[in-house]
Parts: sequence; structure tokens; C-alpha cells
Amino acid sequence: MSPIVNRFPGVVRQLREARGWSQEELAERADLNRSYVGEIERGNAMPSLVTINKLASSFDLLPSFLLARCEQH
Amino acid sequence: MSPIVNRFPGVVRQLREARGWSQEELAERADLNRSYVGEIERGNAMPSLVTINKLASSFDLLPSFLLARCEQH
Repeated sequence: MSPIVNRFPGVVRQLREARGWSQEELAERADLNRSYVGEIERGNAMPSLVTINKLASSFDLLPSFLLARCEQH
Repeated sequence: MSPIVNRFPGVVRQLREARGWSQEELAERADLNRSYVGEIERGNAMPSLVTINKLASSFDLLPSFLLARCEQH
């Protein structure tokens, strides 16, 4: 799997925890199912462009910035 | 649908045509099914992070840059 795909789960978790949010709170803000957020953070679900955009805007980030975080070593 | 999701199909087509590639050639470079590339360009298929990454690397771009193109007005 490519680095960006491998890093995405950890970056979402980092951004969520940095804001002191539970998975439930992130799911609510991103209009996603709570268990799906858990699956994404465990790397068991592959987010679509819509989901990437929902997560990014709930973190108040541009989607490109969210992916750039996943491109950093 | 969000702007980035709306613009993604057109940006992929622009980047492909700028390189003079057919959909077939892009599909081959990106290790994707040709008809799926057509679906993406018509906005009928929602790409996953893996597909975004495959398309970006076939264009020799970072995925974050590909999304940034979709965030421009």
C-alpha cells in the first residue's frame, strides 16, 4: 500500500486527538457514521474523495492540506 | 456535492488531455480499468484515496497537488 494510504489513518487520529474530540464527535462533525470513523482510523476502510472532504472540513482544513500531512515523513 | 468533488472529473480530464493521453493510456499508467477512468471523468464514479493516489502518480504529481488543483476557482 502506498505511504499516503498507510499514513492517512494515523493523521486523522492525530488531528482528532489534537482537538480533544472523541470518534463520536468527529463523526458528528463530519456527518459520518461513528463506526466508519473507527474503521478509517484503524486503516480498515478506504475513504473516498467525499469522505476525505468531509473529514478535512470538519478539521477546518483544505482536503489538499489533509493529504499533504499524509505525504510528510 | 462539494466543489472539490464537482471539479475532480474535469481536472483529471484536463491533466490527461494536456499530456495528449487517451483514457486508455491514463488507465494503463494508473493501473486502473479504462471504463473506470471514463466513469471518473464523467463524474459517475467517486474515487477512493487509492485511486486519487494512482491518478496523481501517473501524472507525476503529489496527491495533495492534484486536490489543490480541484480547490482552485
